[in-house]
Amino acid sequence: MTKEPIFDVAQLAHVEIYTPKPDETLWFFKDLLGMIETGREGQSVYLKAYEDTYHHTLKVTERKEPGLGHVAWRTSSPQALERRVKALEESGLGQGWSEGETGQGAAYRFKTPDGHPMEILWEVERYQVPDDQKTALLNRNQKRPLQGVPVRRLDHVNLMCDEVTRNKEFMAENLGFKLREHIILNDGTEAGAWMSVSPLVHEVAFMRDQLQGGGRLHHIAYWYGYPQHLMDIADIFAENGIEIEAGPGKHGISQAYFMYVFEPGGNRVELFGDAGYLIFDPDWEPVTWREDNLAQGIIWYGSPLPAEYFMYGTPDVRKQKEVAK
Amino acid sequence: MTKEPIFDVAQLAHVEIYTPKPDETLWFFKDLLGMIETGREGQSVYLKAYEDTYHHTLKVTERKEPGLGHVAWRTSSPQALERRVKALEESGLGQGWSEGETGQGAAYRFKTPDGHPMEILWEVERYQVPDDQKTALLNRNQKRPLQGVPVRRLDHVNLMCDEVTRNKEFMAENLGFKLREHIILNDGTEAGAWMSVSPLVHEVAFMRDQLQGGGRLHHIAYWYGYPQHLMDIADIFAENGIEIEAGPGKHGISQAYFMYVFEPGGNRVELFGDAGYLIFDPDWEPVTWREDNLAQGIIWYGSPLPAEYFMYGTPDVRKQKEVAK
Amino acid sequence: MTKEPIFDVAQLAHVEIYTPKPDETLWFFKDLLGMIETGREGQSVYLKAYEDTYHHTLKVTERKEPGLGHVAWRTSSPQALERRVKALEESGLGQGWSEGETGQGAAYRFKTPDGHPMEILWEVERYQVPDDQKTALLNRNQKRPLQGVPVRRLDHVNLMCDEVTRNKEFMAENLGFKLREHIILNDGTEAGAWMSVSPLVHEVAFMRDQLQGGGRLHHIAYWYGYPQHLMDIADIFAENGIEIEAGPGKHGISQAYFMYVFEPGGNRVELFGDAGYLIFDPDWEPVTWREDNLAQGIIWYGSPLPAEYFMYGTPDVRKQKEVAK
Amino acid sequence: MTKEPIFDVAQLAHVEIYTPKPDETLWFFKDLLGMIETGREGQSVYLKAYEDTYHHTLKVTERKEPGLGHVAWRTSSPQALERRVKALEESGLGQGWSEGETGQGAAYRFKTPDGHPMEILWEVERYQVPDDQKTALLNRNQKRPLQGVPVRRLDHVNLMCDEVTRNKEFMAENLGFKLREHIILNDGTEAGAWMSVSPLVHEVAFMRDQLQGGGRLHHIAYWYGYPQHLMDIADIFAENGIEIEAGPGKHGISQAYFMYVFEPGGNRVELFGDAGYLIFDPDWEPVTWREDNLAQGIIWYGSPLPAEYFMYGTPDVRKQKEVAK
Repeated sequence: MTKEPIFDVAQLAHVEIYTPKPDETLWFFKDLLGMIETGREGQSVYLKAYEDTYHHTLKVTERKEPGLGHVAWRTSSPQALERRVKALEESGLGQGWSEGETGQGAAYRFKTPDGHPMEILWEVERYQVPDDQKTALLNRNQKRPLQGVPVRRLDHVNLMCDEVTRNKEFMAENLGFKLREHIILNDGTEAGAWMSVSPLVHEVAFMRDQLQGGGRLHHIAYWYGYPQHLMDIADIFAENGIEIEAGPGKHGISQAYFMYVFEPGGNRVELFGDAGYLIFDPDWEPVTWREDNLAQGIIWYGSPLPAEYFMYGTPDVRKQKEVAK
Repeated sequence: MTKEPIFDVAQLAHVEIYTPKPDETLWFFKDLLGMIETGREGQSVYLKAYEDTYHHTLKVTERKEPGLGHVAWRTSSPQALERRVKALEESGLGQGWSEGETGQGAAYRFKTPDGHPMEILWEVERYQVPDDQKTALLNRNQKRPLQGVPVRRLDHVNLMCDEVTRNKEFMAENLGFKLREHIILNDGTEAGAWMSVSPLVHEVAFMRDQLQGGGRLHHIAYWYGYPQHLMDIADIFAENGIEIEAGPGKHGISQAYFMYVFEPGGNRVELFGDAGYLIFDPDWEPVTWREDNLAQGIIWYGSPLPAEYFMYGTPDVRKQKEVAK
Repeated sequence: MTKEPIFDVAQLAHVEIYTPKPDETLWFFKDLLGMIETGREGQSVYLKAYEDTYHHTLKVTERKEPGLGHVAWRTSSPQALERRVKALEESGLGQGWSEGETGQGAAYRFKTPDGHPMEILWEVERYQVPDDQKTALLNRNQKRPLQGVPVRRLDHVNLMCDEVTRNKEFMAENLGFKLREHIILNDGTEAGAWMSVSPLVHEVAFMRDQLQGGGRLHHIAYWYGYPQHLMDIADIFAENGIEIEAGPGKHGISQAYFMYVFEPGGNRVELFGDAGYLIFDPDWEPVTWREDNLAQGIIWYGSPLPAEYFMYGTPDVRKQKEVAK
Repeated sequence: MTKEPIFDVAQLAHVEIYTPKPDETLWFFKDLLGMIETGREGQSVYLKAYEDTYHHTLKVTERKEPGLGHVAWRTSSPQALERRVKALEESGLGQGWSEGETGQGAAYRFKTPDGHPMEILWEVERYQVPDDQKTALLNRNQKRPLQGVPVRRLDHVNLMCDEVTRNKEFMAENLGFKLREHIILNDGTEAGAWMSVSPLVHEVAFMRDQLQGGGRLHHIAYWYGYPQHLMDIADIFAENGIEIEAGPGKHGISQAYFMYVFEPGGNRVELFGDAGYLIFDPDWEPVTWREDNLAQGIIWYGSPLPAEYFMYGTPDVRKQKEVAK
């Protein structure tokens, strides 16, 4: 009999990003995407979408360069956390416990082989909804905001890395992520991998970083679930000087109705505009996109992706290299 | 430390319904909902939606009265099947192994306390897609049909029962279903329960059967995920003599954008028109709807539900009682 | 040869409504529907939607009772205004010229046979868009607001009247309105008429007022054009205590995807959620709905209309009668 | 006082296209776009969309090369036809009366300055709906088809021409078309003009033909009015080998949610996926797009247009030139 799947990681809990322009970044997430500020501490501001239930799903921290602060995963139980920490310790990429910070309890810190800072935790603080934001829709965390075109919840994170396969295997072996779709080039190398612990096609994706920047962020994604909202926010972006890199359009991979934009700090943000598809099949055979059909995998219909999509991440290492000269 | 959750059941695999009018029922599912016929055997026809991956998700069997044939659950591994069969045997509601039938391997049969026939299995046959139906969209099982307004996949089943709580506990204890939302009346009794093994709010719901018919079907639900498709198929139904019982409208419970219709055989069918919301939180606190806010739980906005919604199921026991007089 | 059509009236220019609760009414139109305040004068506030091009399409005036202030029509040319004024003078229902008010030039005042105050004009003032609201989308009057779920433009007005036919004929003969759809009851009387001067199915509708209030307002309608926006604003209404009378649903008559709500002052407001259908056919045969198919004319699918829909208008004459006792 | 507008042309009645692959072209319009065949005569097949009310809006005629057969305009009255014929005769571009053909009465034939064959008529035959296609939705011509993703009605035609201004002026002076939007390049020349006789932004557009092919067709457009339908048909196209040239995306000009594809015969077809915006303002100031903001006029958001969009029309004169060598 085959080995049973691991169900120890439950979800993507939050992401921290760095920004050199905190005011503009907050304007983007709060005024345009309708996110709620739930706290400030030092150089950081905590935000959530209206259907997120925890204290925050986004931490925006001021830094000289944009990029990824860290990615936090929540386990399915305290016992699951213990098991995963043990595996991470044995992997050699564990870094030890942090004492916990605003909105959460203790977390075990580690890095992906490519260097992306991550943590795994069980204890989270739930958002204390102010009375005037309480809603009669009891399964919704708080009232739908009247500001902008409000996103509903954090969806996934996409990370650039030197070697996709190594990072993919690390997530599978130590955290139980399942491979859902991937790209295999004619030379046999893996150019991208989409992985999940839930029926979502991915909570994390790894894409090859041609510039080998190390631990770079490709994008974070917030979810609408309704195609119209992508058109609404695209309209808003077009009028308010936010650069749309690509979309709205439909990926073949993940069937996501996507749009990519740059928040003013320079990080790429994806808005996810439909339900995509969900994987309930317990022995789902990963979908392999090869060069002969890759074009349809990348764009099923709609707006193409520019070449920069496959090069640019944060921090922008080319810019740093130029400065270094 | 609290007990860890059970992850042994992966998904709703298929449902069998009975119909006294098989030709009309097939016209409904094939011509209007764009489902594909994948086999016939005896008095039964097997059907699937275009994004379903197995041999079938719906078995339509001719009988004098409409109603539920059985509900089939697929486990997350062969080992998980063994564990669940053991629990079911101990529950006293197990009935033993069936040898398997078209499209699947051996299945363990059991009944809910209210008498709904169910089975649990691991081995399933995947649909062999004919060449002219193969699609370049590799994560889609077959081409999107050009017929009707095609549904994408089976979503859930809603069952009527004498005592909601007893059936809910049976599913939780023996199969690991988690309670997501429920209705508690002023007298303390439970009038409905929505349960799932995945981030979906429910793969199964139990609602109180005021007529105590025993093992009755309230409805099966197929999924679109796009609100417009519900309006499209409503338009088609209105023109083609299909009775719309209620909807399109939005439930508070489950946030489903719903529509209920009767297929010509008499069974209620729900079409699910958006992404609803998904539960990733591993210690989700079940949402309790009470009489003071139940109206908003039932209808958040849009079309109300008629009183019959809470009475009618299949078989229609009132009709049988009348006949019996 | 048949008489040629009249093309003298171009459009519905604006509507004035009365409200006993001006602050709450303005909160409804500005905070929820994203309308822009363009002026205040005396007890009146002027508002427009972001794709309206004139100074205002809605004038909200404080009064003890809700109801209709007046309806303003714009002609297709100055010459057309002269011709229509002449016809109105001859009709015996003309009232003479007003000197013009904020946002417009001179207007000729008249009443429908049922007593609805109306005016017809040529000279209008266009909205002077502030610099920070100017948009690169040159055919859009101003930036799409970030507030609420913003309506796009004024669509139509629905008026209650004692005798539909008399009012319909008045609009046809004096102003060139064409009958598009109407309801003829079994007793031969006309219960409703939908009329337009453009390809829209109606800029004005008349519905029988069973209470014979005289000059009452049934509703004003603002337009979204996108079905999702109706669901978005329904969600907002449900959370913010705005009473939804009916919808979202689809009328057979006019094919409007509709929703009716009461603004806090008591006037009924319709939000129009799709494109409906347009009439370009120059000898369009009016559609006649009779009692045998009227149900489908009223509701093609979705939320039914309550009996009150056919009784309540503003002012609420029943309330006044009660007070009078 | 300024001259009054002309209201003599009511609408675009139908378009004839040529195709070298009639079977494949009919498969495209019937199987994918759900259009109905209403007649055959000689090398021609007549088609209509389900909300078109006349005998046909599309005539598909077999020819060696794709291209435009003719464009037919319907007047607002018989008198209006007489006036327009007189103007056309005086313009020097009139060609005389045709005796009428299947589905229509006598028509006056003429050409645009660039050579596009057109006709103007009053008498049209309405589609005789078969009993099984009659619908209870009385303002809809026939039942919504169950085939493909059915288009609702013919919307507009886009014509390439050597000199935009000359063709624009011809349509304005002789037929009363109003200029709604246009493109003025830095050298002062007009690169495109969008014109209408109704609140639609255009029933006809002229775009500069860089190849000066003479009388070429850029595209014909059918209308959905619902954004989701564009995504649905895009999905169908992607799976069925229909080349999508661009879209779905949103034009700034006309605010159209567009998609351009090539029917198998080689003609470009646009599907129009939303309500766009409507112009009711009788003294609408034409919108002028200049080089400094033209990019946003062409694409407000979404899929860009390839360079070929501005070169390719039917017949494909480059191909003919090559053959001629």
